[in-house]
Amino acid sequence: MQLSERNLIQYIREKAGSSSPGLVKGIGDDCSVFGKTESTSWLISTDMLVDGVHFQKERHPAKLLGRKSIAVNLSDIAAMGGIPRYALVSMSLTEGLSPEWLYEWLDGVLEILSEYDCSLVGGDTVKGKELNISVTVIGEQNPSGCLYRNGAGAGDIVYISAPLGYSAIGLEILKKFDLKSIDKKWEPFIQAHLDPLPQIHLGQIICESGHATAMQDISDGLATDLGHICKESGVGAVVYENLLPQDLLLDEACAGFGLQKNDCLLSGGEDYQLVFSVKSGCEKKLEEYVLQSGNFSIVPIGKVVEDLGVFLVEEGGKHQEITFHGYEHLI
Amino acid sequence: MQLSERNLIQYIREKAGSSSPGLVKGIGDDCSVFGKTESTSWLISTDMLVDGVHFQKERHPAKLLGRKSIAVNLSDIAAMGGIPRYALVSMSLTEGLSPEWLYEWLDGVLEILSEYDCSLVGGDTVKGKELNISVTVIGEQNPSGCLYRNGAGAGDIVYISAPLGYSAIGLEILKKFDLKSIDKKWEPFIQAHLDPLPQIHLGQIICESGHATAMQDISDGLATDLGHICKESGVGAVVYENLLPQDLLLDEACAGFGLQKNDCLLSGGEDYQLVFSVKSGCEKKLEEYVLQSGNFSIVPIGKVVEDLGVFLVEEGGKHQEITFHGYEHLI
Repeated sequence: MQLSERNLIQYIREKAGSSSPGLVKGIGDDCSVFGKTESTSWLISTDMLVDGVHFQKERHPAKLLGRKSIAVNLSDIAAMGGIPRYALVSMSLTEGLSPEWLYEWLDGVLEILSEYDCSLVGGDTVKGKELNISVTVIGEQNPSGCLYRNGAGAGDIVYISAPLGYSAIGLEILKKFDLKSIDKKWEPFIQAHLDPLPQIHLGQIICESGHATAMQDISDGLATDLGHICKESGVGAVVYENLLPQDLLLDEACAGFGLQKNDCLLSGGEDYQLVFSVKSGCEKKLEEYVLQSGNFSIVPIGKVVEDLGVFLVEEGGKHQEITFHGYEHLI
Repeated sequence: MQLSERNLIQYIREKAGSSSPGLVKGIGDDCSVFGKTESTSWLISTDMLVDGVHFQKERHPAKLLGRKSIAVNLSDIAAMGGIPRYALVSMSLTEGLSPEWLYEWLDGVLEILSEYDCSLVGGDTVKGKELNISVTVIGEQNPSGCLYRNGAGAGDIVYISAPLGYSAIGLEILKKFDLKSIDKKWEPFIQAHLDPLPQIHLGQIICESGHATAMQDISDGLATDLGHICKESGVGAVVYENLLPQDLLLDEACAGFGLQKNDCLLSGGEDYQLVFSVKSGCEKKLEEYVLQSGNFSIVPIGKVVEDLGVFLVEEGGKHQEITFHGYEHLI
């Protein structure tokens, strides 16, 4: 029998319960939230990355892998609008792993942590047959509060931060070519895959704007991650194909490597962009607030509806259900 | 080149630094401590367990392995005198792992968490070639404060909680016999190995007594873990062989299975007992405080000295250095 990660987490969530003294949010969001005081709460999230599953050590430069190991976790803090503070890093190290590789990897870990004013405060190193990296990050709640997955309401506008699909395309290119021989023009895709940037600053700005109702990071693809917001909020969403980001470089890459554009945009994993819902009527104010805060690209792509599920409305008008049509983890 | 875990952690600790806003204690103790307020601080610790290295799935009943996965982490909270609150559990699951095994394992996880009023608040499940369990626990500081590794001073008395060596003996027995065929009289050793209990309550009591100066849990063996206290405190310690706990069942097991008693007591790992130092002159008060709080067995086994290193004084009077003569993790 194969269990999907989603079913297993649902089972664990029911068994674990969600109420506990001092616990603001348990299983079921990007981070758990605990320790509420008058001035703050703490956010915590953890991710496990396995060689051959989540990354390919042989084609991922050590330093960039160090950066990505942290980035995917910081992205969960970004998804709540939080402020990263501390990280713990555990590793199962395989025989023959060189100290030089380890030092470079650690350089990457410490470099990205320092870029986000975050400190390495603990971890564990063990021996194993498989390189396994487990990172836990702790953040502080934004003074404006947290953005959860469960706040979306029918009528809200669905936004994403762009670009989408770059990491999935980067992965396809890396499967075909040696890193050193890849045409420079594909660099944005390669970088999106090997060295993604968590949207910490943008997440905070969206949270502080006061206009967003729910948010989550896009790690498993838009269709899946928007599906999580819908599931937690008890609503559905409609995405309009003609509103998806226009991107000539992405079009060129899709044509060149035989990829379907919609697959990349809707199901491509690991972009670590944000998907969020905004109260209807507040779009202008939200966009102005974000644009005056920095050079960010946010795009309205659809709306929240009462009927459950996530649907794509194609340019010809055809509706297609795409709920959880992203990366599905099978166990 | 082989790196020892101790050297690697030292390297990481130097690179990571120890100062950060709001960070009370970084790398180098049983837990990191952060988020100090007037009333509390938060403790956090993480451990990674790998099948075939830290446990043998084939001979460890799933539910007991679930309990132990959490216990080894709670033990780090115990070592600071803290109060467990939340846990995050990540797992890399191998193909063919049955859902039934997973459910039993999870039963064990939730059972022990509930025994210590601790809630499961997050985690990650991934696919891998090796069963890997990574647990992070969060605790609250004892209202009396934290006990760190670095508070021991020359003249302090070294105590342990007993029994020691049981887990190492249990492991030896389990290597020789099928679990079901083991003589009932060895049950305490088997239980110590398969289902160790973190000394949460005792750790809190020692902390609250106000007489202890440093504490750590005994996971890698007394010689190694007392070595950590000494290193962090800039002192040494002397352990007297004739003060080590007398234990007829342990003597019988050592004789029966061809084990050296001192190896079991000084180097046997995974007992999850506590080693701590007590201000000279306060031994009676400490012992009274502990005994009136519960049925605990604590034993003075030596003293803290100025000269660095951990030494065993044998019954004949011979001194032998045993610093870090416990379980040494090689990477």
